[in-house]
Amino acid sequence: TKCVCDLFVSWQGEKNAGFDVLYHNMKHGQLATKELAEFVRERAAIEETYSKSMNKLAKMASNASPQGTFAPMWDVFRVSSDKLALCHLELMKKMNDLIRDINKYGDEQVKIHRKTKEEMVGTVEAVQALQVQSGHLQKSKEGYHAKCLELDRLRKEGAPQKELEKAELKSKKAAESFALCIEKYNRVGGEFEQKMSESAQKFQEIEEAHLRQMKQLIKGYSHSIEDTHVQVGQVHEEFKQNVENIGIDNLIQKFAEQKGTGKDRPALVGFEEYMTALAPEGGKKSRAKAFRIPGLGKRDKEPDST
Amino acid sequence: TKCVCDLFVSWQGEKNAGFDVLYHNMKHGQLATKELAEFVRERAAIEETYSKSMNKLAKMASNASPQGTFAPMWDVFRVSSDKLALCHLELMKKMNDLIRDINKYGDEQVKIHRKTKEEMVGTVEAVQALQVQSGHLQKSKEGYHAKCLELDRLRKEGAPQKELEKAELKSKKAAESFALCIEKYNRVGGEFEQKMSESAQKFQEIEEAHLRQMKQLIKGYSHSIEDTHVQVGQVHEEFKQNVENIGIDNLIQKFAEQKGTGKDRPALVGFEEYMTALAPEGGKKSRAKAFRIPGLGKRDKEPDST
Repeated sequence: TKCVCDLFVSWQGEKNAGFDVLYHNMKHGQLATKELAEFVRERAAIEETYSKSMNKLAKMASNASPQGTFAPMWDVFRVSSDKLALCHLELMKKMNDLIRDINKYGDEQVKIHRKTKEEMVGTVEAVQALQVQSGHLQKSKEGYHAKCLELDRLRKEGAPQKELEKAELKSKKAAESFALCIEKYNRVGGEFEQKMSESAQKFQEIEEAHLRQMKQLIKGYSHSIEDTHVQVGQVHEEFKQNVENIGIDNLIQKFAEQKGTGKDRPALVGFEEYMTALAPEGGKKSRAKAFRIPGLGKRDKEPDST
Repeated sequence: TKCVCDLFVSWQGEKNAGFDVLYHNMKHGQLATKELAEFVRERAAIEETYSKSMNKLAKMASNASPQGTFAPMWDVFRVSSDKLALCHLELMKKMNDLIRDINKYGDEQVKIHRKTKEEMVGTVEAVQALQVQSGHLQKSKEGYHAKCLELDRLRKEGAPQKELEKAELKSKKAAESFALCIEKYNRVGGEFEQKMSESAQKFQEIEEAHLRQMKQLIKGYSHSIEDTHVQVGQVHEEFKQNVENIGIDNLIQKFAEQKGTGKDRPALVGFEEYMTALAPEGGKKSRAKAFRIPGLGKRDKEPDST
């Protein structure tokens, strides 16, 4: 597999900042973890608020008027809102669990970074040594060049042999000193390269592990949201079905059963003879039984009184 | 098709309340409409709050640290939260449209009820007439029975013929009066039955139309929620895909491109001779070009200076 190492490794550059960039990037990982936890905490708070609002909505539905044919419909709204409240409350809980996971990882991360810092003391020293030696090298080079320039000038001016020999000696010594400096610089540079290479590799491993962990946590976030989304979909489907199932006839029937004041139409009242009394003239036979209005006849509840 | 009419028609019952029950049920329909509007208004408010919270969450994501390898991930969170905010804002708008529809229906409903009330004046009168006549009938029946009882008593006591004849006459007159009362009651009852039957049918039609309208409005409610649910699902899917697509290598590469301090490793420095200066002894050939550290060599930017 292709190693991203070469992309990641930041060599020193003009400002010798490579190590610092990598080190601070690692430290920024802690900030990222903290910010992810804050983001999820905010999301949890949003879901909690939504859940409470849905509870309030459910209460509105259950406080709706129990009168009228529409009344049973409110139960469908109440149940649905209550279930939605539960879905979002569960999401809040899952977000809170996730925050715990993030914080736990954050603690581990701090430990890893502390340990890494200790392990990289050698690299920091190598970086500093290279910086110091780089300064020496520059000075030494300038010195050598100055001596060469002086020698050239004397030659062009046709200076006395003695002076020329003196200047040649100085230039030679400066060249030797410069050569020594180069040697030392290259030695220090070699050490730097090795240490830096190791550290960059280590930084990269840490970074990869960090990003893997962060993506894992984000996966947890998105799975929880997805689960809730599926549940919410089911609640909606159920709501739709319930509304569909409560037919208009159904509502009217329910209402009639609850509030109905009788299915029998009022009927013709017949002449009710008094007990043992004479039959009134005109042969008016009692038709009372068949068409009696409830509550009007005295013997309403007797089985047969014709 | 089976007519629910017989279920719905509430005849007067013991308290003569059938018409009142139907009339008040119709009026409760207005309350149901008002309560549905309030419910949807509350839902709209909840969605607006959720939308604003999602905007806040998006802002949190865009305010997250731009440092470190994780930084580009925040853009995925920001975009997703922004889109969620839009989804719920749109749902709020749809709920507001629905409230307008509900209120519009509520206004029509008031007009229909007012017109219905006017049309049913005859029924109200028939109900009252029946109630009055029902009282008369009861009294008349009691009077007739009392007279019969008196006649019986006198017969058992063996009262004088004159007294018996007098009582018989009274009983006969009471029977005639009772018979007249029954006739009138039956006439009033017939009128009541016709009027009440018409009104009950009308009430039922109004109720069916009302429930049909309410179910239609609820369908609008549930469709809007469903649409938003689908959109939210797409936003989640996109979020998941975006997270998936941003590989760890990707993040590291981006970081290296942005913060990288150079891909070239530091190199051995060679002895740089001074311009036209003598070749120093020991045959140290310049290897400066190949391994130069940027910024150290004076002639760094010249094309070829060996």
